[in-house]
Amino acid sequence: MTYCVAMRLDAGLVFLSDSRTNAGVDHINTFRKMTVFERPGERVLVLMTAGNLSISQSVVNLLRERLQSPDEENLHTLPNLFEVARHIGTVVREVHQRDAAALGEFGIDFNAAIVVGGQIAGEAPRLFNIYAAGNFIEATDETPYFQIGESKYGKPIVDRVVTRRSSLEEGAKCALISMDSTIRSNLSVGLPLDLLTYASDTFRVREHVSIGHNDAYFNEIRRQWGERLRQSFSELPDPDWTKF
Amino acid sequence: MTYCVAMRLDAGLVFLSDSRTNAGVDHINTFRKMTVFERPGERVLVLMTAGNLSISQSVVNLLRERLQSPDEENLHTLPNLFEVARHIGTVVREVHQRDAAALGEFGIDFNAAIVVGGQIAGEAPRLFNIYAAGNFIEATDETPYFQIGESKYGKPIVDRVVTRRSSLEEGAKCALISMDSTIRSNLSVGLPLDLLTYASDTFRVREHVSIGHNDAYFNEIRRQWGERLRQSFSELPDPDWTKF
Repeated sequence: MTYCVAMRLDAGLVFLSDSRTNAGVDHINTFRKMTVFERPGERVLVLMTAGNLSISQSVVNLLRERLQSPDEENLHTLPNLFEVARHIGTVVREVHQRDAAALGEFGIDFNAAIVVGGQIAGEAPRLFNIYAAGNFIEATDETPYFQIGESKYGKPIVDRVVTRRSSLEEGAKCALISMDSTIRSNLSVGLPLDLLTYASDTFRVREHVSIGHNDAYFNEIRRQWGERLRQSFSELPDPDWTKF
Repeated sequence: MTYCVAMRLDAGLVFLSDSRTNAGVDHINTFRKMTVFERPGERVLVLMTAGNLSISQSVVNLLRERLQSPDEENLHTLPNLFEVARHIGTVVREVHQRDAAALGEFGIDFNAAIVVGGQIAGEAPRLFNIYAAGNFIEATDETPYFQIGESKYGKPIVDRVVTRRSSLEEGAKCALISMDSTIRSNLSVGLPLDLLTYASDTFRVREHVSIGHNDAYFNEIRRQWGERLRQSFSELPDPDWTKF
């Protein structure tokens, strides 16, 4: 499995993905799940993928191939994020048409989830969640984030602290804490992480960093967060059974 | 769905279940998922169920029926918790044999999960997790808790704070915080809650309380916990991008 989370804040966009893929616990590998398509000054598009790795790699490769054919619609020329999401959905359907039946014969579901976000000159930053069927939804002011993969462990903290008014620093910090909770509770999600932030109306990636086992900042907030959680927990009043 | 969590601590046992069942969002009901079989001074057994409600109700009804037949093995006479888990597993298999094919014709999986814990005179408190196939596992010193149903949202906090040396109060408090995280992130889990604690070697239920929307203690720790989480989060250092 995998875990990816993306946020669409007023300040910009935050993307975080892990890099663990597995086919059973005896077959665990590290593959990057974040892909960036950037034309500085004009557009930044960030893709994160979950599900069957052969499907998501096929999708990303086809998207790249199309970049070489200027006559076809592609991620460098599409006029807005909605059309980008439609384009990716169409490519997912192409892969489905080619592979789904063959996978099905081996009892393998056509399992794919894609988050794509970014900004194209002429509109505000946008964020979409594309399903295996090629359909998609867009993040809104009320629900400014998407998660794909092992999303449940890390959802409570995002629900509690992220709003569209959060800063990019807060968004990134929350994404890392959400990832930490997921990694602790689920073996199939693991380091290194890819963290990318994008500030609204800049049309270039702000930070794109890889976070490994020796990352001082990540290790420090994991440690502090764990300590504070235990501390906060111990300070909560114990139940007084006589009052029930 | 549902969410239940049980802990086997040195001090005794903690059980917490919600009471929401649903078949689609337009059909949400409240049913209790905790059943207690008690012979004060000799044994206390607590069952919690998740999955298809018709299956778990059938299992509980059959277990009760058997109590009326003193010649058959039943929950009042079985000599230890291992035999209790085997007995329940056998009853699950009876229900499977009767219902699984008919459910399958309607595309419904035979979906059932049961946690049973307690103490029978002559041995220490024990806790088991019984699967739909009737097989089961037992909680150990290293993994002193089980969850069934919507378990992922509430797992990180249990992983962080509960050990076998936790007190019953800490266990109950942690179960309630874990439930709170689940309720906030998942509509299909809801109040009222059933909370039961059992102190080792007492052979009678210590507390068994129902926690509704107006429960002062639960509302207070939810509020405090939310506040402290946000506070702790805001006090974590922001990422310093220049250092990556």
